Amino acid sequence: MNSSMGKASKRTAIQPTREENYPEWYQQVVKAAGLAENSPVRGCMVIKPWGYTIWENMQRVLDRMFKDTGHKNAYFPLFIPKSYLEKEAQHVKGFAKECAVVTHSRLEMGEDGKLHPASPLEEPLIVRPTSETIIGELYSKWVQSYRDLPILINQWANVVRWEMRTRLFLRTTEFLWQEGHTAHATEKEAWEETRQMLDVYADFAENFMAMPVLKGEKTEGERFPGAVSTLCIEAMMQDRKALQAGTSHFLGQNFAKASDIKFLSETGEQQYAWTTSWGVSTRLIGALVMTHSDDDGLILPPRLAPSQVVILPVIPKDEHRGPVMEACESLKKELHDLRWLDGQRLEIELDDRDLRGGEKMWQWIKKGIPLRVEIGPRDLESGSVFVGRRDTGEKSSMSREAFVGQVIDLLEEMQNGLLKRAMDFRESNSREINSEAEFREFFSSKDESDHGGFAWSHFCGDPEWEDKLQKELKVTVRCIPFLDSMEEGTCIFTGKPSKQRVVFAKAY
Amino acid sequence: MNSSMGKASKRTAIQPTREENYPEWYQQVVKAAGLAENSPVRGCMVIKPWGYTIWENMQRVLDRMFKDTGHKNAYFPLFIPKSYLEKEAQHVKGFAKECAVVTHSRLEMGEDGKLHPASPLEEPLIVRPTSETIIGELYSKWVQSYRDLPILINQWANVVRWEMRTRLFLRTTEFLWQEGHTAHATEKEAWEETRQMLDVYADFAENFMAMPVLKGEKTEGERFPGAVSTLCIEAMMQDRKALQAGTSHFLGQNFAKASDIKFLSETGEQQYAWTTSWGVSTRLIGALVMTHSDDDGLILPPRLAPSQVVILPVIPKDEHRGPVMEACESLKKELHDLRWLDGQRLEIELDDRDLRGGEKMWQWIKKGIPLRVEIGPRDLESGSVFVGRRDTGEKSSMSREAFVGQVIDLLEEMQNGLLKRAMDFRESNSREINSEAEFREFFSSKDESDHGGFAWSHFCGDPEWEDKLQKELKVTVRCIPFLDSMEEGTCIFTGKPSKQRVVFAKAY
Repeated sequence: MNSSMGKASKRTAIQPTREENYPEWYQQVVKAAGLAENSPVRGCMVIKPWGYTIWENMQRVLDRMFKDTGHKNAYFPLFIPKSYLEKEAQHVKGFAKECAVVTHSRLEMGEDGKLHPASPLEEPLIVRPTSETIIGELYSKWVQSYRDLPILINQWANVVRWEMRTRLFLRTTEFLWQEGHTAHATEKEAWEETRQMLDVYADFAENFMAMPVLKGEKTEGERFPGAVSTLCIEAMMQDRKALQAGTSHFLGQNFAKASDIKFLSETGEQQYAWTTSWGVSTRLIGALVMTHSDDDGLILPPRLAPSQVVILPVIPKDEHRGPVMEACESLKKELHDLRWLDGQRLEIELDDRDLRGGEKMWQWIKKGIPLRVEIGPRDLESGSVFVGRRDTGEKSSMSREAFVGQVIDLLEEMQNGLLKRAMDFRESNSREINSEAEFREFFSSKDESDHGGFAWSHFCGDPEWEDKLQKELKVTVRCIPFLDSMEEGTCIFTGKPSKQRVVFAKAY
Repeated sequence: MNSSMGKASKRTAIQPTREENYPEWYQQVVKAAGLAENSPVRGCMVIKPWGYTIWENMQRVLDRMFKDTGHKNAYFPLFIPKSYLEKEAQHVKGFAKECAVVTHSRLEMGEDGKLHPASPLEEPLIVRPTSETIIGELYSKWVQSYRDLPILINQWANVVRWEMRTRLFLRTTEFLWQEGHTAHATEKEAWEETRQMLDVYADFAENFMAMPVLKGEKTEGERFPGAVSTLCIEAMMQDRKALQAGTSHFLGQNFAKASDIKFLSETGEQQYAWTTSWGVSTRLIGALVMTHSDDDGLILPPRLAPSQVVILPVIPKDEHRGPVMEACESLKKELHDLRWLDGQRLEIELDDRDLRGGEKMWQWIKKGIPLRVEIGPRDLESGSVFVGRRDTGEKSSMSREAFVGQVIDLLEEMQNGLLKRAMDFRESNSREINSEAEFREFFSSKDESDHGGFAWSHFCGDPEWEDKLQKELKVTVRCIPFLDSMEEGTCIFTGKPSKQRVVFAKAY
């Protein structure tokens, strides 16, 4: 592992460390921060308040971005009739094998004193794994003429995909997401929408999650079932594996034909609409955890943290309680009145629980709160506060006045620092690789926590080689990246011509 | 009907009128406003952007109120194992007969070329009709000691109750809601929470929905299945029927016992927690429609309207387009920069679609937008705007400057006016009724659109009489209202002593 992350020599708050066992470290960080836990319902998680607030913050920012690009929210049914799923052949293949099927509408008490399913449905219903087919059905009714286009709608919803192996946030049977569904009169406009929403996701990932991403196109094998093209943003986690963080699909006329979304064009012809869909999910929280956290627990970018600051009163004797708490309350109020990010308030915790100071501090470190501020009797005398930064671990005493005056700059500095650190990590683990031998070596570390990184290699696009690499090395093409300048070359596997380098990695 | 609402003499935008056919009028208002429509999935609605934005506005206000009273949001699984539902006997009875049952986790292509349910589950899962049992299971793990209490959590979610007869917003198989679930160390604290959240709902109903409500307690027969007591807010619709708009349940220790939520008390004893739950749903949108709208369509209280103002450019000739549009854009920007309601922006529509002016105006009237502002070439010359109010129908020309300066006061005046109008309607249709004969007459109008109103009568609480009144008159006790002063009396049905008057009505 990168030396800046290793802390093997000292006792860490999270056991095991990233180096010792990365997947288990991840579970322990999520648990210690109180983000989520497994529920008694197989594969479904409970998102706890600290984790859910991160999701609310993500929602607020993304929702603003969607609205600023002309979209409105709506809500479509949870259930999809089985026959709808059957309409698009590729789509069925992709989703039929992992879906929750509702077959009855009642439970009846049996003679065994237990409840049994009763009142079978005429047609089974599927709990939506994604909503192209049901939304398509409605769009076909809403669209008559070119004047009804474009339709630019987003939905915030829960979806269900029956997963065999689940991991909190990264892969769960039920998850929360948003799904945008748009319909356009022209191919060009639908393509522009697809690209625009990818840019929105990349903007969000870099400027709010502090997570650098590559933008690009998926190969055929990795496409959304039924799409003409799937665009994606890909991030590198600290174990050097890639994580697909968001996708934007150009659906061509495939779903318009399946759902009969037709319109009368300006020139009086019946035409099929061009549609897109795009989504990000609670998986982003998993990405956030794995991008920034360390062996002491969660680290949160200030812009998405549920609270930016926790104030910890230090009360050595009972007589100190009054003045210390008063100072804490007054600081909390003053900080909460500060505005950043287009008028948003800072969120401040004041933790006056009756707990040992060290235990309390470590709980907040593990929760990843950006700044800890301790105030005790001596600080009151000197007009200072004792500030701890979660990102660098630095601690220092500073005047209360200076802290209040600088806190927003400090938070923005931390936000930028996290992005830079993640960017540096990705760059130092990305390599241009020009031969198959080098490629194989890159992805074959004996260290179980080292998954290589991003290999930028020329590739001809042969699907058989994609299969082979996946089977032998668990490596896939993460994306054909969008580049400012294209460099032609020769496929490192087949020697055939290649238009550009693509990005290979092991992936979540 | 109240004369202020009757418009039988003139052609109305909504057909039929309230007087002619109230239930059908409701459907037509919802349709004409573009709030929602029935989906191809039986009983499930599609909430369209204009309707969904009302829900988003409701969510924003309520969420703030919940957080200001110390609650945090979290998210629990959509599915509930069948065995959980079986834990609380009353609860099962209430929900087993109307629930979506998931029995399979896969669809498989059959020889008939169709998909069939495959991979049966060991234990069927229920799509949550409400989440007491699954949340109780988790709370039992989270609560060890009195220090872990109270737990104050809310969830925004979709729920499913298999309804046979559905009506948009009022009763649908799937609906959106929030459900608060709290656990406390003492009975007193749980009771205070139950009452506090009822007050939050009443505050929201009156001050944001402009809908007056009665606060009170349900009789045993109308209680939430498993609750010790159900508190409710009840509103009167324009057909004089009551609508239950929100409920807050004191669950005692019933669910704590069913889910084993125990804690070690300060004195070292194992005790069961005291729990509450409380919820409001998208049904509120139906209540909003039926409280304020008229025979020309939707009327929205400004505080919850998706947009407060629509600007309609009047462009008699092509040469006017440039200057008129410029004036419209500049007014839009200026209005959008105004802040009200604790820093919120005014939302402004600018409708420059190429449609006949009259048609466009009527679309906005039917959508219930509070203010319409027309700007044409003559207005530019005189520096004026032409303003139409949706609530009173008044139209007047005023200076642009005066309009911008007064718009927020005007919107607040409209908000208050709607509340007052609804309050007057309720009061003029509420009666103290002191004999059974008078009671029967009150609820037996030959006019199908007249359902009587609220009858305030002394009642001894006999459940057999409740059954009888429901069967014979379709009248139920809506609530035992919370009153500042109690007047004892004699039950109008049995002659037994009564502690206070209760409120009877026909209900949605």
